[in-house]
Amino acid sequence: MRLVTYRDSVEAEARLGAIAGDLVLDLADFGVVEGIPFPSTMLEFIDLGPQAVAAATKLIKDADGIFPVGTTRPLANVTLLAPIPRPRKNVFGIGLNYTEHVAESAKSLDTSVELPRQPVIFSKPPTCVVGPNDPILHNKTITQQLDWEVELAAVIGTRAKGVTRADALKHVFGYTVMLDMSARDCRRAGQWIYSKGQDSYAPMGPCIVTADEIPDPQTLDLYLTVNGVEKQRSNTAYMLFKVDELVEDISKGMTLEPGDVIATGTPAGVGAGRDPQEWLWPGDTIVATVDGIGSLRNPVVDAS
Amino acid sequence: MRLVTYRDSVEAEARLGAIAGDLVLDLADFGVVEGIPFPSTMLEFIDLGPQAVAAATKLIKDADGIFPVGTTRPLANVTLLAPIPRPRKNVFGIGLNYTEHVAESAKSLDTSVELPRQPVIFSKPPTCVVGPNDPILHNKTITQQLDWEVELAAVIGTRAKGVTRADALKHVFGYTVMLDMSARDCRRAGQWIYSKGQDSYAPMGPCIVTADEIPDPQTLDLYLTVNGVEKQRSNTAYMLFKVDELVEDISKGMTLEPGDVIATGTPAGVGAGRDPQEWLWPGDTIVATVDGIGSLRNPVVDAS
Repeated sequence: MRLVTYRDSVEAEARLGAIAGDLVLDLADFGVVEGIPFPSTMLEFIDLGPQAVAAATKLIKDADGIFPVGTTRPLANVTLLAPIPRPRKNVFGIGLNYTEHVAESAKSLDTSVELPRQPVIFSKPPTCVVGPNDPILHNKTITQQLDWEVELAAVIGTRAKGVTRADALKHVFGYTVMLDMSARDCRRAGQWIYSKGQDSYAPMGPCIVTADEIPDPQTLDLYLTVNGVEKQRSNTAYMLFKVDELVEDISKGMTLEPGDVIATGTPAGVGAGRDPQEWLWPGDTIVATVDGIGSLRNPVVDAS
Repeated sequence: MRLVTYRDSVEAEARLGAIAGDLVLDLADFGVVEGIPFPSTMLEFIDLGPQAVAAATKLIKDADGIFPVGTTRPLANVTLLAPIPRPRKNVFGIGLNYTEHVAESAKSLDTSVELPRQPVIFSKPPTCVVGPNDPILHNKTITQQLDWEVELAAVIGTRAKGVTRADALKHVFGYTVMLDMSARDCRRAGQWIYSKGQDSYAPMGPCIVTADEIPDPQTLDLYLTVNGVEKQRSNTAYMLFKVDELVEDISKGMTLEPGDVIATGTPAGVGAGRDPQEWLWPGDTIVATVDGIGSLRNPVVDAS
């Protein structure tokens, strides 16, 4: 399934939907008709576990494109929000997780040229998360070095503490796209949370593709444009620590919970690594894509 | 008020209470008798804002120690939990915020000898939070360098974005004690979240003292013992960035929300800064105190 959080109008509540062609199927409404009580939010649905995913997937397949009256609306008529508009904790981010990005970072930032021996983990507060088309806030009183990072993000489905690499992907609910916005001049004593944690610095979406449709998350092209010009292009095959390794590693010390988001790192091509360096300014538009999931388009706006 | 989250038994739900001498007053039960609907959890109470604090404070004062039957129980008979057992986002931590701790860290860790020019912010996931007397989990497969840090923690009362220093303390609900447990050998490329973010690494409590009772948070002695031997002693007067500056600074880029916790940094005397260095092991017991708030006592247990 391609799951979204959508609303019909600015005032409407955010609801869980599934993309069906050019329609959004409201899962809770569909469940009422079918006699299966699906919840109306993504986090509640994730909490139900793999059986709910299997049940919803089967119902949609069986419907074969013919849905009960009132359970769908045209995709073009709804607003998509971040699939998880408000994570229950920090978003976990992974730094320096693509070889060439390690090299470019060592040249321009304060990181080592050595490949990390363990995942470099940081966090972004849940207040960072915004959805497709939402503005990325540029506050020029804080930063003159706002940068882009396209990333595959894994969404945790079931509680994970001390899981092995072999079992790790069983705990993944699905995958989405995240922009790990980074104000390079807001790093402090090496800590990245102010650099990466400001409001609006984690655009997420446009959907979560459930893990059954992405059996191998290490095969996905990902790329990013700024104002239509390609700046990043790579494949998740080149991640240093794969998704299963990240889940194993984090869960060794920190309990992962349903709905947790792990942004898995960005490939080369960020603005800080360019010669001359390039930064984002109000008026710029970023489009971040992971093939098989979709594209996130976000404008940068002045919020000084 | 000295507010706690307590339960009567292991199976009982966690509820909001106020300390009254050697009693715990259940605020929701008290409110029922008094005709004021107080909620039963700390976060819901914080959400009600300053008027609820004022109303509860007045009711307790007017009661003058004589509370309705059934609304109190002996403090000795309840279990105190972390005042906020599950923060809604990461806990914000502040590094290198006492002069002598900056010096000891530069000697033994990988931090600069220079005083930071801006607060050094990091985060701990909400899964770190445990309460008084709860075990601190020592996983020897992950760390051989578990260290202590006593800290004053500020709890945010009202949403804060872009507040000035002059207004900052109006957004503080109250203060508690936090142990910022740190596995020094789990820093990764300078990032601290694995070092400071493991399950059980943020003991919090025993109570939140509301801000009206601590008009100046920069006057509090804080100290820590390990197995009865004093290891840290200082006063919050020596913080480099005061509580109001921290709220101003964080809120410039990151929205602070009711119930958010800011651990304000630790003074000198941590194990990493000693010669020879000292680390915590299963069987050790830490007591962390901020005068005027109370003491947190937590044992270190083997969780390998």
